[in-house]
Amino acid sequence: MALPKQVKIVEVGPRDGLQNEQAVSLTAKVALVNALADAGVTYIETGAFVSPKWVPQMADSGEVFKTIARKPGVTYAALTPNLKGFEAALDAGADEVAVFGAASEAFSQKNINCSIAESLDRFAPLIAAAREQNIRVRGYVSCVLGCPYQGDVAISDVVRVASELYRMGCYEISLGDTIGVGTPLHAQRMLKAVAEEVPIEHLALHFHNTYGQALANIAACLPLGVATIDTAVAGLGGCPYARGASGNLATEDLVYMLQGMGIATGIDLAKLIHAGTQICTHLNHSPRSQVALAELAKQET
Amino acid sequence: MALPKQVKIVEVGPRDGLQNEQAVSLTAKVALVNALADAGVTYIETGAFVSPKWVPQMADSGEVFKTIARKPGVTYAALTPNLKGFEAALDAGADEVAVFGAASEAFSQKNINCSIAESLDRFAPLIAAAREQNIRVRGYVSCVLGCPYQGDVAISDVVRVASELYRMGCYEISLGDTIGVGTPLHAQRMLKAVAEEVPIEHLALHFHNTYGQALANIAACLPLGVATIDTAVAGLGGCPYARGASGNLATEDLVYMLQGMGIATGIDLAKLIHAGTQICTHLNHSPRSQVALAELAKQET
Repeated sequence: MALPKQVKIVEVGPRDGLQNEQAVSLTAKVALVNALADAGVTYIETGAFVSPKWVPQMADSGEVFKTIARKPGVTYAALTPNLKGFEAALDAGADEVAVFGAASEAFSQKNINCSIAESLDRFAPLIAAAREQNIRVRGYVSCVLGCPYQGDVAISDVVRVASELYRMGCYEISLGDTIGVGTPLHAQRMLKAVAEEVPIEHLALHFHNTYGQALANIAACLPLGVATIDTAVAGLGGCPYARGASGNLATEDLVYMLQGMGIATGIDLAKLIHAGTQICTHLNHSPRSQVALAELAKQET
Repeated sequence: MALPKQVKIVEVGPRDGLQNEQAVSLTAKVALVNALADAGVTYIETGAFVSPKWVPQMADSGEVFKTIARKPGVTYAALTPNLKGFEAALDAGADEVAVFGAASEAFSQKNINCSIAESLDRFAPLIAAAREQNIRVRGYVSCVLGCPYQGDVAISDVVRVASELYRMGCYEISLGDTIGVGTPLHAQRMLKAVAEEVPIEHLALHFHNTYGQALANIAACLPLGVATIDTAVAGLGGCPYARGASGNLATEDLVYMLQGMGIATGIDLAKLIHAGTQICTHLNHSPRSQVALAELAKQET
């Protein structure tokens, strides 16, 4: 099959990234979201409406949504675990929302404190309310290539949860290698199997880079026609010590690869690197992007 | 085309790696080579016989060769830029030698102080002497996907230098993305073109990971039948500040991917990670391997 001519990048740094980093100020978050939009990113997961007890880093997501400079053509989305979160996200002005499920029963229990079936039940009223208000809902399926608690995850479980979320009304299913353990042929097999139930144009990849495999896995999947990929600028959230939530692939590294393959993203790589470097000064660590590090080193020589 | 069932890994950490790190003791080098052999690595570039003025880190390569515990079935090789180096390598007991050329005229001038043509002329007597003594010579071609000085490198230049080295008697040509700038389709195109002149079973990939692309590039090339790959344990040599010599791909990350793809390497990943961790304690930095970091973090939790 032919490679896609264009890939849509779903930037998850401000949410999936920052929720796994030390807390930064509202100003820093807003500057990050604005810098990403300025770099040409057209879809930004901007925050989460979850309990601040569990995820204190996202406590000011409402403020973030209200303060950012909205750029036309950019979708500002929010993660919402339940109806209450959904309503708060709409109040704040989120364009879209996302729900977070798992293909692993053990991960579902440990991470969202309920079974997979219960989590889907919880999403149903949210998805119904969203449909009434003409708000699109994205569905995450985590642990599609492995689970930190149960180890292997059957591809049939991924297919089941992904197609159920699609059937329930999620317009796009994001397949997450949450702990970054997958390798290219496994990723291909998984995507092929899911694409038999959910049309490939409604599928996205969300591969963490914990084991350094994310780009290779994405490259292996592109010929299957997948054209939406989730990444985090500067590899935000890449704390390797948090089990089950480590190592987002850096947006810079994906954009660099796609550019080299002649696949358009609409993103200005230099501006993207700048956005990542800027937020990393607030986090007191270097960007976790090989491309950013290499380009910054070149500027220093 | 089908993937290879088995890949031979050429471990270049003790040479290409350590020559781009701060100097470590003879004891540490010997321990590294022995640990690599113990992990199942069957080809180890153990040192270089070059001017200690230019590469002080390799000044004791003769001692390294004389002190290691030789394991049957393992090839201990040396980099030798000229006849003098070749003779010193043989005296020290190297099983094989390698010469280092470039596909980029600018890099050849800056890195080895002569034109490409002059460098090939220098290799001729070395290759002749090696043939007389039944010593195999490996040929490196650097800058096959880009040059730090001239930028783009024509694939036709790579083909020309690779086939010339092969014609001169090198039994294997290692194609180096010295600055790690390549992307998957470019890597594929380059390898395909070279394989039209040099049989694929006489080609190896030596891709640095400076821009995070190495694994994706290797995965893209494996279906072409290439089955020899150069890497450095712990990503040794990965100093991002040295122009033109940065960012070896970590052997651990490649072995992990190949295992996941069902491709045999004969290497014990846990022992390999141990070998890398051990040398990194002498270098005072963490392993530059995502797999090693992820596994070490798991052990800590």
